[in-house]
Amino acid sequence: MAATTSGSSGNRIPELRKDAISNRWVIFSPARAKRPSEFKSNSPAVSDQQLHQRCPFCIGNEHQCAPEIFRFPPDNPDWTLRLIQNLYPALSRDLPSPAPPRLANNLTGSVLDGFGFHDVIIETPVHSVQLLDLSPHDVGQVFLAHIKRIHQLATNDSIKYVQVFKNHGASAGASMTHSHSQMIALPVIPPNVSARLENMKDYFEKTGKCCICEIQQEDLLIDTSDDFFSLVPYAATFPFEIWIVPRHHSAHFHELDAEKAIDLGRLLKLMLRKMSLQLNNPPFNFMIHTSPLHSNASELAYTHWFIQIVPQLTLTAGFEIATGCHINPVFPEDAAKVLREVNVPESG
Amino acid sequence: MAATTSGSSGNRIPELRKDAISNRWVIFSPARAKRPSEFKSNSPAVSDQQLHQRCPFCIGNEHQCAPEIFRFPPDNPDWTLRLIQNLYPALSRDLPSPAPPRLANNLTGSVLDGFGFHDVIIETPVHSVQLLDLSPHDVGQVFLAHIKRIHQLATNDSIKYVQVFKNHGASAGASMTHSHSQMIALPVIPPNVSARLENMKDYFEKTGKCCICEIQQEDLLIDTSDDFFSLVPYAATFPFEIWIVPRHHSAHFHELDAEKAIDLGRLLKLMLRKMSLQLNNPPFNFMIHTSPLHSNASELAYTHWFIQIVPQLTLTAGFEIATGCHINPVFPEDAAKVLREVNVPESG
Repeated sequence: MAATTSGSSGNRIPELRKDAISNRWVIFSPARAKRPSEFKSNSPAVSDQQLHQRCPFCIGNEHQCAPEIFRFPPDNPDWTLRLIQNLYPALSRDLPSPAPPRLANNLTGSVLDGFGFHDVIIETPVHSVQLLDLSPHDVGQVFLAHIKRIHQLATNDSIKYVQVFKNHGASAGASMTHSHSQMIALPVIPPNVSARLENMKDYFEKTGKCCICEIQQEDLLIDTSDDFFSLVPYAATFPFEIWIVPRHHSAHFHELDAEKAIDLGRLLKLMLRKMSLQLNNPPFNFMIHTSPLHSNASELAYTHWFIQIVPQLTLTAGFEIATGCHINPVFPEDAAKVLREVNVPESG
Repeated sequence: MAATTSGSSGNRIPELRKDAISNRWVIFSPARAKRPSEFKSNSPAVSDQQLHQRCPFCIGNEHQCAPEIFRFPPDNPDWTLRLIQNLYPALSRDLPSPAPPRLANNLTGSVLDGFGFHDVIIETPVHSVQLLDLSPHDVGQVFLAHIKRIHQLATNDSIKYVQVFKNHGASAGASMTHSHSQMIALPVIPPNVSARLENMKDYFEKTGKCCICEIQQEDLLIDTSDDFFSLVPYAATFPFEIWIVPRHHSAHFHELDAEKAIDLGRLLKLMLRKMSLQLNNPPFNFMIHTSPLHSNASELAYTHWFIQIVPQLTLTAGFEIATGCHINPVFPEDAAKVLREVNVPESG
């Protein structure tokens, strides 16, 4: 047996580690922890109804939040959207840019300092308003805030990938009920992104085509807008999973312009309303799948960004953790038909 | 747009599908579904306390179960363990052995008939007894039942991999409270297994060593037995995740003999008791990670089976679904220290 892997178990900076067996980066994030000996089950302490006075994301409570990065409109006390630091960040923005990964644990592991950014987008000043209540224009402003921040983060050479995501509902991982999304800027390209790029490259090399340009199919389609379409993917991992895909080939989400952002806002709002009406306002996640910040020209030819929306209807259990193979009880063409036929009232 | 992917949305056999983007098999399993239009959130219908009279897994209620495959002791009404078919199988044993995967969905997808086996091991005849209450000998018998069934399944050339797993507690995916584990025999090698084999092969080619033979390290160790050791892995995906690893190189779980199965039973029981005492009887999953049934000689040199135990203490949310990168708030050496120091009373 070798010596200890790290020094004391006291104050620690975040670390990224992987082992030779799964070869997947894991973020170790002590800022988010209780003391290890105080961990118990049954305590994800989420308050279902936060009062306006106590919710730090509500307008008037800005002093309770971590520092602001920007707001829309700028310098306006009547803001409609704020982008702030996460008070419990998964990665630390205060570290020097990290050295390359080094070997550890008898050479079976790798480790990297946990440098990165973890931000929160407060999507509305009003506690009771959900993302699907906003106008298409205002949903578009949320995307434009993500995009503005990605352009800022891209100036840091150590940042390789920015993951934008939203957790809605306690069982989908939201610790705050006030409508918000999050962004984590990573010093590595995460495992699913590397795998996706490799698979799309294989397809491109075989066929000369981008596989996302090819996935549209009548029985899987839910709806379309000027610049996007929404569908249930052919091999959907989760029941009633929805993708929103740009019609025209585009590698990077942050290339989106203001007009297309509003068009996207309209289609996202419609999908969220259909999901809420059909599935009884389920907890959900959405994730923006884009390309690494510093892509080369050949990557740009076969990568195509999209949004994945996942209502939380089934549990991930032992079989899925072990195999990476999910069991989906609903065929995609059946889910697409149900969602196509949901009648959404015009107003609202 | 192309024509429809499948015929009607009526009675269907299970299917495995993957797309060119994620390249991960998903099992579509209509036997486990409500009608697609009846899917709602907030309904994973798990009854917390089943009464003995109503629990089909209790002794005396065998007629309420799907067909039995074998029991210990054989032909004995006072059985201690039964291995039965799952009443709601993810895959169908009644299909002809499947043809190779074929292309679908404008050639961006692949599909395979859902042939396979999904069995349940009832670990005790008594409703109130949990796995950690059994004697080391009786926990060993559970492993020997898994092994006996794997040998039966291995005679079917279409079965490539058998995943053994246990879900304990509703939020870890258990739909029955009576202590049981499950086995799914698959016609494909699942994505995490392929990735694990590839990573272990890379390490072997670089170093000439099996990376699991090398992972033992003082500050990560929890305990040892004659033939096994338990540790928190260096890059643990989940807080307080535990691995139990054979001391001597062994590719296949189903090579285990009766004596070693009891030794393993003793160490598993100890780990479950430590976890229960320290973490307040959390829901948990355990998974047996082994090698494909029909491994070649070179695979046998670098694959090494182990058990992964995961207490359910954190949620998997948008960031993890998108990136495959987990955020773990507890450093492995801290979790190992806490678990090492849990004092388990001798009796029980």
